[in-house]
Amino acid sequence: MERIYNFSAGPAALPAEVLEQARDEMLNWQGCGMSVMEMSHRGKAFTGIIEQAEADLRTLMGIPANYKVLFLQGGATLQFSMVPINLLAGRSADYLVTGSWSKKAFKEAQRLGKARCAVSTEEEGFARLPAVGEFDLDPCAAYLHVCTNETIHGVEVHDCAALPASVPLVADMSSHILSRPVDVSRYDLIYAGAQKNVGPAGLTLVIVREDLIGRVMPGMPTMLDYQVHADNGSMLNTPPTYAIYIAGLVFQWLKRRGGLAAMERANVEKAKLLYDAIDASALYRNPVERASRSRMNAPFTLARPELDAAFLAEANIRGLAGLKGHKSVGGMRASIYNAITLEGVQALVDFMREFERKHG
Amino acid sequence: MERIYNFSAGPAALPAEVLEQARDEMLNWQGCGMSVMEMSHRGKAFTGIIEQAEADLRTLMGIPANYKVLFLQGGATLQFSMVPINLLAGRSADYLVTGSWSKKAFKEAQRLGKARCAVSTEEEGFARLPAVGEFDLDPCAAYLHVCTNETIHGVEVHDCAALPASVPLVADMSSHILSRPVDVSRYDLIYAGAQKNVGPAGLTLVIVREDLIGRVMPGMPTMLDYQVHADNGSMLNTPPTYAIYIAGLVFQWLKRRGGLAAMERANVEKAKLLYDAIDASALYRNPVERASRSRMNAPFTLARPELDAAFLAEANIRGLAGLKGHKSVGGMRASIYNAITLEGVQALVDFMREFERKHG
Repeated sequence: MERIYNFSAGPAALPAEVLEQARDEMLNWQGCGMSVMEMSHRGKAFTGIIEQAEADLRTLMGIPANYKVLFLQGGATLQFSMVPINLLAGRSADYLVTGSWSKKAFKEAQRLGKARCAVSTEEEGFARLPAVGEFDLDPCAAYLHVCTNETIHGVEVHDCAALPASVPLVADMSSHILSRPVDVSRYDLIYAGAQKNVGPAGLTLVIVREDLIGRVMPGMPTMLDYQVHADNGSMLNTPPTYAIYIAGLVFQWLKRRGGLAAMERANVEKAKLLYDAIDASALYRNPVERASRSRMNAPFTLARPELDAAFLAEANIRGLAGLKGHKSVGGMRASIYNAITLEGVQALVDFMREFERKHG
Repeated sequence: MERIYNFSAGPAALPAEVLEQARDEMLNWQGCGMSVMEMSHRGKAFTGIIEQAEADLRTLMGIPANYKVLFLQGGATLQFSMVPINLLAGRSADYLVTGSWSKKAFKEAQRLGKARCAVSTEEEGFARLPAVGEFDLDPCAAYLHVCTNETIHGVEVHDCAALPASVPLVADMSSHILSRPVDVSRYDLIYAGAQKNVGPAGLTLVIVREDLIGRVMPGMPTMLDYQVHADNGSMLNTPPTYAIYIAGLVFQWLKRRGGLAAMERANVEKAKLLYDAIDASALYRNPVERASRSRMNAPFTLARPELDAAFLAEANIRGLAGLKGHKSVGGMRASIYNAITLEGVQALVDFMREFERKHG
């Protein structure tokens, strides 16, 4: 069987070129006689791999020199804890609650310290991004936390310049990092689980302004202190070496493809194709306000939910996988990350039209 | 270039058969049209992979039904925190300090709660395992912590039946798990970083008696609570899916090779070959008392340290890599985990003899 189109929300499709290189190098990386998986993390070969990965990420995102790049473990979920543990310093933090993920981050911060909800769109089903005028901000907050792309509800911050700059800005970018250029200097801390646009699950990126760290909450595990990881070059203990290697291959693939500006052009085109097809249809519906729609995750429902099972079954037969919506919202979801080509989205749209003609 | 013999302490050599299967399945796992790296962790394919991995590990180690198996992240170093956070419950714990790793575990437990050193061999350079009669045990301790194989100092617990059974027994088995049969029921919690005998770095195994958990220290991150991970089948968030898949391939390889009893026979033979060569030599010396020597990690020094650089350079030319000792002890170290064959140890011993003839 051929490779299929995989619309999973994460772990998600990776570029075939990256997987081919990983396959070819699996037993013997660049003639060194061993797999990257077998390399000492302190040896010259792996040190080169992690340094190149960091350099490429810095180039791709334009990360300023006064920001640390950390390669950590535990996913965004562990960052929900590490952010307040490292940044609260006895104060309170503000959270924008714009979907399931920012809500989880907010709840965890409340467990560990003081956190306020500056705005919530939950009563509106998280179907739009709130405007800055709606925010109830604490001018003394330790930081303002925002999830710039909500993977489950499909809302995305498209204009980060509109976010308040009065206190440090912390962003969970897990599901749209590397999908578009971002002005890193507008943020004070960015984190992202790797398993969407970066690489395999088990790697977490943290990009943090270096003067923001070093004030960790007392009595917390050493492994949760950003400063310790920064001081040890992400090698306090053995990092997830193979996942870092794959992420590095993805970074190189992105550079060959023209970087984040080129990815953004492709992602805009892909998202337009999909949302236009949804909006033109009588069967499919996306609940999100147009200006807030995510380019990466498009949830949609069928006007006749009794057709859901048939939709998924027929899609699978056509090699279109991972379309089932998150259990908390139901319906469908197409995640169209960087590794999903325009052809992949076209195949999905063609199938959706055909399915509607047949069953609509 | 051919594959070399890799004596790294971890990440370490993996069986070539495992890497070959991973290579062959990289772009398309069992005809499903995607890589394991791309699979949703909640889909049927990956659920099958993690369940098979757990079942195979239970068979290999004979894990009783009342023990949970958790697939976590963060390495043994995060377990140094999670063990006291989950098991102290306001009490004190006892630690056997028998090398660098148990010392680190002890220090972290002291940071997070109350911990006592029940015995330390540090003044003797960690060159032997203390006898039970030397332990100063607290009969009310929440648990007794032991590192059953010290990767840096090369001492190994060979008779776990001799360990005290008066309080729950917690073992860091990172560097010798799966190298020999172990009576899991003698322990209450076993943990191990994967990157020696299990699979890639970034995966951590925890095997814990289920009635021991559920009393986590208040105010700690949700991600550090064993009970939450157990309740969610290691899927509170996205687990390190690809590392779990590779570990599963290693478990199947171990089963094909005859399980842990067969591995133990091979490991006894390999260790005897290496230590006999060291003991018969005038140039090489292993500092550890014979009865305490590790079958997995053999540190050794050269009587003329000025030859260290030449030893490493000539070994590398012969395809014998990763022999440099840990920076804290210097000299050499040969880690001869499951994936190192008898032929690999023979090649090392042949080289050591030749080097001694030439320079000795």
